[in-house]
Amino acid sequence: MNEKIRLLRERLRNLNMEGMIITNPINIKYLTNIENEGTLLITRKENIFLTYTMFLESVKSTLTINDEIIVADFRDVSKEEYENFFLFCENIGFEENYVTYKQYHYLKQKYRVNNLAETENIIEKLRAVKDNEEIEKIKKACEITDKCFNHLLEFIKIGMTEKEIAFEIEMFFKKNGAEGLAFDTIVAIGENSANPHWKPTDRKVKMADPILIDMGCIYQGYSSDMTRTIFMGCILEEIKPVYDLVLKNQLYTIKEIKEYASIKTISKIVDNDFKLHNYSLIHSLGHSIGMETHEIPYINSKTDKFLKENMVIAIEPGIYIPEKYGIRIEDTILVEKNGCNVLTSSPKNYVII
Amino acid sequence: MNEKIRLLRERLRNLNMEGMIITNPINIKYLTNIENEGTLLITRKENIFLTYTMFLESVKSTLTINDEIIVADFRDVSKEEYENFFLFCENIGFEENYVTYKQYHYLKQKYRVNNLAETENIIEKLRAVKDNEEIEKIKKACEITDKCFNHLLEFIKIGMTEKEIAFEIEMFFKKNGAEGLAFDTIVAIGENSANPHWKPTDRKVKMADPILIDMGCIYQGYSSDMTRTIFMGCILEEIKPVYDLVLKNQLYTIKEIKEYASIKTISKIVDNDFKLHNYSLIHSLGHSIGMETHEIPYINSKTDKFLKENMVIAIEPGIYIPEKYGIRIEDTILVEKNGCNVLTSSPKNYVII
Repeated sequence: MNEKIRLLRERLRNLNMEGMIITNPINIKYLTNIENEGTLLITRKENIFLTYTMFLESVKSTLTINDEIIVADFRDVSKEEYENFFLFCENIGFEENYVTYKQYHYLKQKYRVNNLAETENIIEKLRAVKDNEEIEKIKKACEITDKCFNHLLEFIKIGMTEKEIAFEIEMFFKKNGAEGLAFDTIVAIGENSANPHWKPTDRKVKMADPILIDMGCIYQGYSSDMTRTIFMGCILEEIKPVYDLVLKNQLYTIKEIKEYASIKTISKIVDNDFKLHNYSLIHSLGHSIGMETHEIPYINSKTDKFLKENMVIAIEPGIYIPEKYGIRIEDTILVEKNGCNVLTSSPKNYVII
Repeated sequence: MNEKIRLLRERLRNLNMEGMIITNPINIKYLTNIENEGTLLITRKENIFLTYTMFLESVKSTLTINDEIIVADFRDVSKEEYENFFLFCENIGFEENYVTYKQYHYLKQKYRVNNLAETENIIEKLRAVKDNEEIEKIKKACEITDKCFNHLLEFIKIGMTEKEIAFEIEMFFKKNGAEGLAFDTIVAIGENSANPHWKPTDRKVKMADPILIDMGCIYQGYSSDMTRTIFMGCILEEIKPVYDLVLKNQLYTIKEIKEYASIKTISKIVDNDFKLHNYSLIHSLGHSIGMETHEIPYINSKTDKFLKENMVIAIEPGIYIPEKYGIRIEDTILVEKNGCNVLTSSPKNYVII
């Protein structure tokens, strides 16, 4: 059987569940490679993928015999068959963080499950630890991102707008092997960089502007995420200590990342160091990354968990001075047994273009 | 007060509800123009938008006094205040088709609502009928889409791949004023067009290939959706009767569209005409379109509703001959009192390039 489904079945048994109804397309893709709409049923004896007539061919061509997944057309499943999938089962899992309130009641009624039980992100937790194939894809996405940054250093000129720079980033990604953007690119010039989230505008680059660029691409379904704050022509003296403080904390965090490091502790230390300097970290220190740009576990002081080998996380401390400027520095990082591997490798010292 | 919220309040009263908790960002944007994450509360007396510290500035700059929306930071709301928002209220609405099972329980507990009640797409139903400003934006998106089609007729050459054509479409949209794609473009050449959904591959255009292109762009937040099936060099004789049948039904549907036309009846007539010719319509005849590409009401024989003036719908009949070819023709259409206005106007006769 497909190794990922085998592992999921093991975890379900530990939760005392006899099966699961999976509808989140990202989880379905993770487990089966199927990219078409449908429902994956893990029953006591079988793995079944129900889909629409128009997707049958495509689904069948994706699966191999080794997957041990039966494919069926929703149209061909009778009321009785729905009710038989989980006959005599007590607890059947579902994705309580994906399934809507309305769908929950639909599933419960359709499959006649005694107890449709919360699985506490059981699949997302599997997804948090990446296998070699996944890591290679993320590495490649990071490589394209670094290349893009390098290109931008030549490309960005005084008078260019945030929108123009964001467009160039997207073009570069697509021309260099990426499927597209991992998320809407942030290009925030000057005072706009004071907003942690920002939608590119027609604001033009002027002399002495900081330019905050938060970008990532998707390579074969996996994301990268990197932020750099660079400067046009020169860097204002008042910005330097803030830049230094952000960078110090980003480097400190990287030094602490390894298997079994406490997410909470790492995040608290950054929180505290910022406070000590009269700033505050107004967003999470970071997040996990993979098939989605934001995955669990989130890296902040509320996450009382430990890092595991082969998790991939983005670490992005930032300080924002309202109406003036913001500094954020972010890398995508692979957690290793005795340390970590920073997968995005663009320069982090003062970059003046 | 903001007109859209005023209307929502009226509908809530009709449902015997004293307020609503709104979390779907598209609905929030529709009602308020706010694009930042947060929760919109319609309480008995007030409209309140709760958001994160980092979004406060951006939210405040979006709203006007006329909106009558109070903005607050999640961090500043105490447990008691949460419980007071809906004090002495019986029924408070929520978005049962958006809120997850987990969030439902969270909201219920956090706001201490007696009955957190299903609102049956109350906001999506408001969104179905567009105002003039919305219609203008959709028209503009359709105009860019037509221009793009025109450009493709010159651009597509033998030897080009599906991926190259899809990339060109995206570039064209962005260079011509659109924010981006309304959905992943479908470019399906030859036998690939037999799949109603298709992800562009490296399949190259050859002589006599049908080329199915399903594309749409977003202009100021509003989508267009158009499909054409064109031919390289010549059109195989066996394809002509299928093309003619699809086109006949698409034109017939358009002739029937007007206020109070029955969605069910229109859809059934196409279903039946296809069956009469030994084909079948394996997907919906169409869907509504606006801030999202697929909105309610869906246009199929299960929708027992009538069209209303100023709904915008996409009509897309298609016939797919497995492993050989597919023909789909789709337009974005404005429903009017005594007829309709087809907003996408690219040619629908045999287009041979």
